[in-house]
Amino acid sequence: MENTNIKSATPIEATTATPTRPSFPTGTNARKTVSRSHGMRPSRPPDATQTHKKVEDTVPPLAPNSIRIIPLGGVEEIGKNMTMIEYGNDIVIIDIGLQFKEESTPGIDYILPNTKYLEERKDRIRAVIVTHGHLDHIGGIPYVMPRIGNPPLYTRMLTSVMIKKRQEEFTHVPPLDIKVVEKDETITLGALKIKFFAVTHTIPDAMGVVVQTPHGSLVHTGDLKLDHVDGIPTAEEVAEYDRVFKNEKVLLLMADSTNVENPGFSLPEKTVHKNLEEIIKNTKGRLIIATFASLLERMLKIIDFAEKYGKKVVVEGRSMKGNIEICMQLGLLKPKKDTLITVEQIENYSPDKIVILATGAQGDEFAAMMRMANKTHKYIKINKRDTILLSSSVIPGNEKSVQKLKDNLSRQGANIIHYRIADVHSSGHANHDETAWIHKKINPRFFMPVHGYHYMLRVHGEIAHDTNGLTEDQIIIPDNGSIVEIQDSGEKIVKLKEKAPSGIVMVDGFSVGDIQDVVIRDRQMLAQDGIFIVFAIIDSRTGKLKKSPDIISRGFVYLRESQELLHHTRIIIKNTIEDSTKGMNPLNVDFIKTNISDNVSKFLLQKTAKRPIVIPVLLTI
Amino acid sequence: MENTNIKSATPIEATTATPTRPSFPTGTNARKTVSRSHGMRPSRPPDATQTHKKVEDTVPPLAPNSIRIIPLGGVEEIGKNMTMIEYGNDIVIIDIGLQFKEESTPGIDYILPNTKYLEERKDRIRAVIVTHGHLDHIGGIPYVMPRIGNPPLYTRMLTSVMIKKRQEEFTHVPPLDIKVVEKDETITLGALKIKFFAVTHTIPDAMGVVVQTPHGSLVHTGDLKLDHVDGIPTAEEVAEYDRVFKNEKVLLLMADSTNVENPGFSLPEKTVHKNLEEIIKNTKGRLIIATFASLLERMLKIIDFAEKYGKKVVVEGRSMKGNIEICMQLGLLKPKKDTLITVEQIENYSPDKIVILATGAQGDEFAAMMRMANKTHKYIKINKRDTILLSSSVIPGNEKSVQKLKDNLSRQGANIIHYRIADVHSSGHANHDETAWIHKKINPRFFMPVHGYHYMLRVHGEIAHDTNGLTEDQIIIPDNGSIVEIQDSGEKIVKLKEKAPSGIVMVDGFSVGDIQDVVIRDRQMLAQDGIFIVFAIIDSRTGKLKKSPDIISRGFVYLRESQELLHHTRIIIKNTIEDSTKGMNPLNVDFIKTNISDNVSKFLLQKTAKRPIVIPVLLTI
Repeated sequence: MENTNIKSATPIEATTATPTRPSFPTGTNARKTVSRSHGMRPSRPPDATQTHKKVEDTVPPLAPNSIRIIPLGGVEEIGKNMTMIEYGNDIVIIDIGLQFKEESTPGIDYILPNTKYLEERKDRIRAVIVTHGHLDHIGGIPYVMPRIGNPPLYTRMLTSVMIKKRQEEFTHVPPLDIKVVEKDETITLGALKIKFFAVTHTIPDAMGVVVQTPHGSLVHTGDLKLDHVDGIPTAEEVAEYDRVFKNEKVLLLMADSTNVENPGFSLPEKTVHKNLEEIIKNTKGRLIIATFASLLERMLKIIDFAEKYGKKVVVEGRSMKGNIEICMQLGLLKPKKDTLITVEQIENYSPDKIVILATGAQGDEFAAMMRMANKTHKYIKINKRDTILLSSSVIPGNEKSVQKLKDNLSRQGANIIHYRIADVHSSGHANHDETAWIHKKINPRFFMPVHGYHYMLRVHGEIAHDTNGLTEDQIIIPDNGSIVEIQDSGEKIVKLKEKAPSGIVMVDGFSVGDIQDVVIRDRQMLAQDGIFIVFAIIDSRTGKLKKSPDIISRGFVYLRESQELLHHTRIIIKNTIEDSTKGMNPLNVDFIKTNISDNVSKFLLQKTAKRPIVIPVLLTI
Repeated sequence: MENTNIKSATPIEATTATPTRPSFPTGTNARKTVSRSHGMRPSRPPDATQTHKKVEDTVPPLAPNSIRIIPLGGVEEIGKNMTMIEYGNDIVIIDIGLQFKEESTPGIDYILPNTKYLEERKDRIRAVIVTHGHLDHIGGIPYVMPRIGNPPLYTRMLTSVMIKKRQEEFTHVPPLDIKVVEKDETITLGALKIKFFAVTHTIPDAMGVVVQTPHGSLVHTGDLKLDHVDGIPTAEEVAEYDRVFKNEKVLLLMADSTNVENPGFSLPEKTVHKNLEEIIKNTKGRLIIATFASLLERMLKIIDFAEKYGKKVVVEGRSMKGNIEICMQLGLLKPKKDTLITVEQIENYSPDKIVILATGAQGDEFAAMMRMANKTHKYIKINKRDTILLSSSVIPGNEKSVQKLKDNLSRQGANIIHYRIADVHSSGHANHDETAWIHKKINPRFFMPVHGYHYMLRVHGEIAHDTNGLTEDQIIIPDNGSIVEIQDSGEKIVKLKEKAPSGIVMVDGFSVGDIQDVVIRDRQMLAQDGIFIVFAIIDSRTGKLKKSPDIISRGFVYLRESQELLHHTRIIIKNTIEDSTKGMNPLNVDFIKTNISDNVSKFLLQKTAKRPIVIPVLLTI
């Protein structure tokens, strides 16, 4: 039997028949057919060649008296912030952030800025400057740095430690060349002079950047808000802006747009601290405070307050523990011995003395808070005497999971305090009037909003107009990859018609790239309707089935309860094969497969109103 | 060759090897391994038998002087509202709603209340009473009515027409027996007397229900808010509550919890109308108003205002058109000839005269608004002179799509007005103080919050305590399927330890059921990591591969660019088969398959950090 003539007609991975998409039967169900966008599957993603084209081919060279600015990320989303500034032979990059996956990118880990423009100009990159230590500003570093030649990285102390800590998880990348700077330092990078300024955010050592060119300065604020009381910025805040901008001729301002839709001034973090102090002081029973691990300043305050009122603090959650360790290492936090206790030590103290600081305020599935809510936390069981303080807002997209968190905690009887009923959270981004104050202080000739969705950038553009009277030709609303130039020695600002590559770059396991559209589309289809694989052996002489075809399916219908459906599907397969092969010699396997795909898809749709991906696997023998 | 001895070793659908889940390699990537919950796949969903058990087996019979109430849906979510009241031999049902799919139920169309309890007591069901015409109150009717014996359905006029209209899409269900009632009618159902009362919501003909029993009355509010000015309910509102409740001994109140977390009184719809009138009057250029098709009262007002100011109205969106037609049919809307024009007629009028009323304020992918935003609308192209009014809030979960809508509209230069910058939307549900007013008026002995997530119900419970002094033993916070009884002739309220079946019931294409956990879990896994099918032919004599194995994969990695990965995977498959079959006679196919699953899964995880479902298909020959 070794010599049995096996003609393999099984598909190799790229040549399986395209599943057909029959139209939906009408009048039988209220199902919204329009909500499916299966589309035809191209044998190759449409832009696969496009993205390999050299950028040089399309982007004009930079004129000697022009400055080029490209926002590579962060201007069509909240996240993956990255901005490039190019003048003469020198490129400076501000921030390399990442964005978390969207509902539209299932299975993906992160989304990165597209850095193709830079990868082709590595030799001109003088530095990456990082404004602060949040993931939407540092998260892309391990992925992007090796691709752009690992240039020197300038940042302040805390940020440098956070970057190094994250880098430990990436063992295969070359070591970073990090240079720690201080806020009043000036550095020179090629023809560019760089100054920094301290900004108020939610993490220590946040800074803005001033890039001085012969034609004037470009200012990038990073993320910021103002330290203020009732809308009056503090003396320190005013002094820092005066120090840097009093005598600075600012050509272009790039500023944070995240919260410009919110009226007035943001809630001062000082007010939040005051309220937290009251709650920590007065709470009877355990106080469990859930907040973001990124809000380092608030965590430090909470530990201080707990210590002040003789309470012990348990820190629960890996990212929070890591950040607290960094703060202690840098001397930003100096708790007394025994203020910080381990979760196992809780039982040694009265509940009135316990403050638990935990991650998972967004209802993250496996974070400390959700484990408590789900009763899966090894040490902490919620009870009626516990008070839970959600010191956080709800990030858009997380409403359902936060609801679930609140539901499960309140189900166990805990008292819940959250930002809608008390001032226990403030964002780190400036509101409308705060932003206007910053515009007034910096008073730029041109303006380009960054850090936000398109509509936010538009609203921010109006602030520039209303505050400093900037006109339409002085304001650029960019997209990711927009090539913005200040031309004629600083006389005008334009957005070129050409764009730098801006296709989405995804981190999917170990794979990092921009040509996975087809994979994502398949995942979306699989998530909706599953897959249905038909396996049949055909007698090449008679064109008939050798045996009843086998079926493998996942995510479609529950097969154990669909025996009749399977039975009829097998009959359809058998008939399709026999009809297709009638008088055919030799067998045209592709033709048979297409017919099976078509007929099975149509039948399954009719019977189930589902459209699984149908793949026929044929073996002729 | 016809007699070739083919031993099929291909899996039938239910016996494919369980994919193994090797542990994640450490130290090489920041990927969160914890976010995967692949879990083992049981050969049968754990509760498949459970759900077929007769309810009678576990639920004790109802005592003669007890009243039983079961919230079958709507008390662990916003949606699928359905409540059952049972007394003696009579069952009355209030509402049969549906819920839209969640992120956790990919591919699903709707979620329904679990009605097993009722399916086994069909003969006692006297009526379904429907409070108003929204999908979370009527949407389950076509699915549920045939299962519970299609009892008579009582509701007010508009609701009855909306139910009939929806029923047209379901051709295979028996016709409904709808009886139209008015708000001041009383009907008798077995031993129960039913009265109604008019409530303020966002749709005409909304009502609450009073079920009179010998022990006192049970009141169900349906969805409601108050018609008020500055927190003072109008005379009509007061009169209606006085008419119904002045002399009513209310044993139990069941009331809407949707917005009880919001302080004070809700924004009056009258204020929204006033603002809309101003905007309609003053807008130059086209005014495009996006709102919910369910907000019938507001749509009617908008058409009235447009007519008043000599403007023409285009209605865009199927659901909106359908609802407007119903209103005209019932005489609720009597526009002048030519006030309503078609979208093709827009060009015949000055833009200043055009009001477009459109669906899709939530950024729904294919609704009218999104088509305008995406430039795919056939007739309406957005331009800088257009004003877009989003007369809606953002439903939790829709933040990203609404953001996209605003981005794409503002990208085309349109001016956008939305609820965060103007009072152009109000919810149809009572806020905290409004709810307290209702509690005061109805003054029940017992209270059970409905319509909301668990935490909302808890907050609502506090309102009952604070307003009427109800104590813990007078308040029941239920779950879906909780069996609540008022016992001892109205003396006490208890929640039994037994529960009515409450497993999730999903509409998935034509399939409606509650045992699809395994399908949903597969869809979730497929959406994350895809599927990887190995197809190999083994020589049953030598135990060796007859040819290089074939691979089919979807949603995993982009195979065209993964040739090396495939090459190595084939080697692993070959080695695994040869190692497994060494000295084996006859071949143990299951053993070989398990080994292939294990080894391939492990290898793919190591190389890609992805965990596709691996299915080996073996043919011995």
